[in-house]
Amino acid sequence: MSNNKPSINAERLWRRLMQMAQIGATEAGGCNRQALTDEDAAGRALFMTWCKDAGCDIRLDAIGNIFARRPGRDASAAPVMTGSHLDTQPTGGKFDGIYGVLAGLEVVETLNDHGIETDHPVEVVVWTNEEGSRFDTAMMGSAVWSGAMPLAKAYQLKDLQGTSVESELQRIGQLGPDLPRQPVHAAFELHIEQGPILETENLEVGVVTGVQHMCRYRIKICGQETHAGPSPMSLRRDPMMAVSQILGELYQLADKHAPDSRVTIGYIHAEPGSPNTVPGEVVFTADLRHPDGEQYQTMLAQCESSVAMACEAFNLEGEAGLIWEAPGVSFDCECIAAVKKAVENRQYPAKEMISGAGHDACNIAAVAPISMIFIPCEGGLSHNEAENIRPDHATAGANILLDAILERSLAQPG
Amino acid sequence: MSNNKPSINAERLWRRLMQMAQIGATEAGGCNRQALTDEDAAGRALFMTWCKDAGCDIRLDAIGNIFARRPGRDASAAPVMTGSHLDTQPTGGKFDGIYGVLAGLEVVETLNDHGIETDHPVEVVVWTNEEGSRFDTAMMGSAVWSGAMPLAKAYQLKDLQGTSVESELQRIGQLGPDLPRQPVHAAFELHIEQGPILETENLEVGVVTGVQHMCRYRIKICGQETHAGPSPMSLRRDPMMAVSQILGELYQLADKHAPDSRVTIGYIHAEPGSPNTVPGEVVFTADLRHPDGEQYQTMLAQCESSVAMACEAFNLEGEAGLIWEAPGVSFDCECIAAVKKAVENRQYPAKEMISGAGHDACNIAAVAPISMIFIPCEGGLSHNEAENIRPDHATAGANILLDAILERSLAQPG
Repeated sequence: MSNNKPSINAERLWRRLMQMAQIGATEAGGCNRQALTDEDAAGRALFMTWCKDAGCDIRLDAIGNIFARRPGRDASAAPVMTGSHLDTQPTGGKFDGIYGVLAGLEVVETLNDHGIETDHPVEVVVWTNEEGSRFDTAMMGSAVWSGAMPLAKAYQLKDLQGTSVESELQRIGQLGPDLPRQPVHAAFELHIEQGPILETENLEVGVVTGVQHMCRYRIKICGQETHAGPSPMSLRRDPMMAVSQILGELYQLADKHAPDSRVTIGYIHAEPGSPNTVPGEVVFTADLRHPDGEQYQTMLAQCESSVAMACEAFNLEGEAGLIWEAPGVSFDCECIAAVKKAVENRQYPAKEMISGAGHDACNIAAVAPISMIFIPCEGGLSHNEAENIRPDHATAGANILLDAILERSLAQPG
Repeated sequence: MSNNKPSINAERLWRRLMQMAQIGATEAGGCNRQALTDEDAAGRALFMTWCKDAGCDIRLDAIGNIFARRPGRDASAAPVMTGSHLDTQPTGGKFDGIYGVLAGLEVVETLNDHGIETDHPVEVVVWTNEEGSRFDTAMMGSAVWSGAMPLAKAYQLKDLQGTSVESELQRIGQLGPDLPRQPVHAAFELHIEQGPILETENLEVGVVTGVQHMCRYRIKICGQETHAGPSPMSLRRDPMMAVSQILGELYQLADKHAPDSRVTIGYIHAEPGSPNTVPGEVVFTADLRHPDGEQYQTMLAQCESSVAMACEAFNLEGEAGLIWEAPGVSFDCECIAAVKKAVENRQYPAKEMISGAGHDACNIAAVAPISMIFIPCEGGLSHNEAENIRPDHATAGANILLDAILERSLAQPG
């Protein structure tokens, strides 16, 4: 690379982010552009218009993923891919997913502006239904593309009104041909962090080396429903006593495996739920996460033994059912190296980190070399209409993406 | 009393209990005879028929309490009163309340059978709407009678269909005149324990010396809703972490004030209740009870300080709102002595105890000398269609009631 290193056009990127945000804009300043709705169709159309104007070839696949390709010098070379998603939560923000897609387009525009030819094609991708809020499977488009989910199964997913993915793809004209997946040379997904680490540590870029292991338990403890007054504590079979002990032990588990552990109790219900009745049953969920496989497995084993021991101690029946699990992902070393090199060259304050949430990159990682780049978001807030990022951070992340793509899309000198 | 001590007719008492249980009988073997329904009206009618046949004078008051009086030698003397309630929970049992009423009637029948004259009249009372399940005020009839609740306020109570107490009293013909409360010489309420203590200790009778202090807190802890994955534990403001600590401390509080303390967490809700979202808010109830006033007050203070300290420790907003409180009641010494004497004479295995639940006797205690008698119920189960008692226990309790009433309704020798 020359000393006159190209940089992205910050104003154009921000303007397009704001323009896209008008489609499905909510009164509270967020976006409601759920997968395969009219709003999603309008967002896709705007994106494709921009891509065509930028000289890209556009292709849809059978699950509606959009591939916008800027050709390289070598027509037979596998592309360097980047992208994310344009769909939002019902009360989503302007940046979750969208930023990664439009920063990819901004990289293409910047290459055009500077007349830079790459050896490998550069492909900007929009993955269908990442949020999984309308059709209940998150990261659906990348799952079908990578082979993790059969196309026929995705087609049959229905929203609450009973409308299927397949019929909605047809209705909005986004159902492409079912062709075999093409090889990918390298891939990057740029995303807002959706957590508070970068902001708290005053950093501008996260070099994301993987995604943590995560799972969800549904824990059910059964005892004996009885009147709150007459029953002595020693004669009760109160599931809430066990829950109290288990919760304490789960948070201790988080401490023991700090700082990378995550323990979340998001749901809890006592049955019958009457203030003056000892509950007969308590159900709660425990979401456990850790980037280190061994520590993660220890956490799961300890959680299960906590439940078993509390039930024994309080003479209760209980079970800890593992209802969902997503194994951790380690991203590609060469992709991570390209991002690290870009961060060092640009001298942005940065750190290596693990993603706490799942992304399309998790599916892609199974079949292609990929890594991710994070930028801070305000207060770590996401899946919220108040989601916000700083324009200078948006610029920083897109410049890192530009450099990393250039690094991986030019033939190695030699 | 002579050596030929009269005893109640066990067969008649049990037969009447079973006959009353047919009114509003449920398939699961319980009763649904909620206050002021057609079923309650039928139960009242059956009771009044029996009372008339036993020679009682029957009077209704303005809130539908039924007073069935067996005259004494001294027409001007205040009555010895006994009774309880005939209404049930929607899925109630055959004995809660009903046993006390029909045992009172059985005492009258026994006095008749043996031609025993008392100095004071003996009055069997049915208190209206003790359960508070249809009209949401438990112990309503005794509250109005004792002056704890204004009649006009009770009249305006409505069920879920919007029907008022007053209109239902009129409809079923149970609205009597609003006359001043007459003095009471002594009173007894015989009831099933609704707890497991007597059964566990293999006892037949509880000499109830009072009712514990009780209250209900609604505790609300607010933090910051956030994604379960990306947010490090140390940066979370997770109300569930505070709840975990508070629950542990509340159960420790119960231990510290054992064996008479009661701590019940019957309701808990995390908002928004999504397994992979750190809750923004958790609300739960804490029902605290203790018979000793000082220890009870310590428990309340400790509960409030637990909430405050946990909120401070975890950087959360929280409040412990006292939403209901019923001060403890100490029953009348002479009434308690009469029950104790009866238990000693009959040589039933018995113990002094405190009632864990509220009863009509709590209201009566404010204006008249009263105490209670408990008999065991199977597994401590009540407010349940499976509620059950042993016939020999039913007999034992009614004999104690008979002796205690006799003790207090005869003029002191001298």
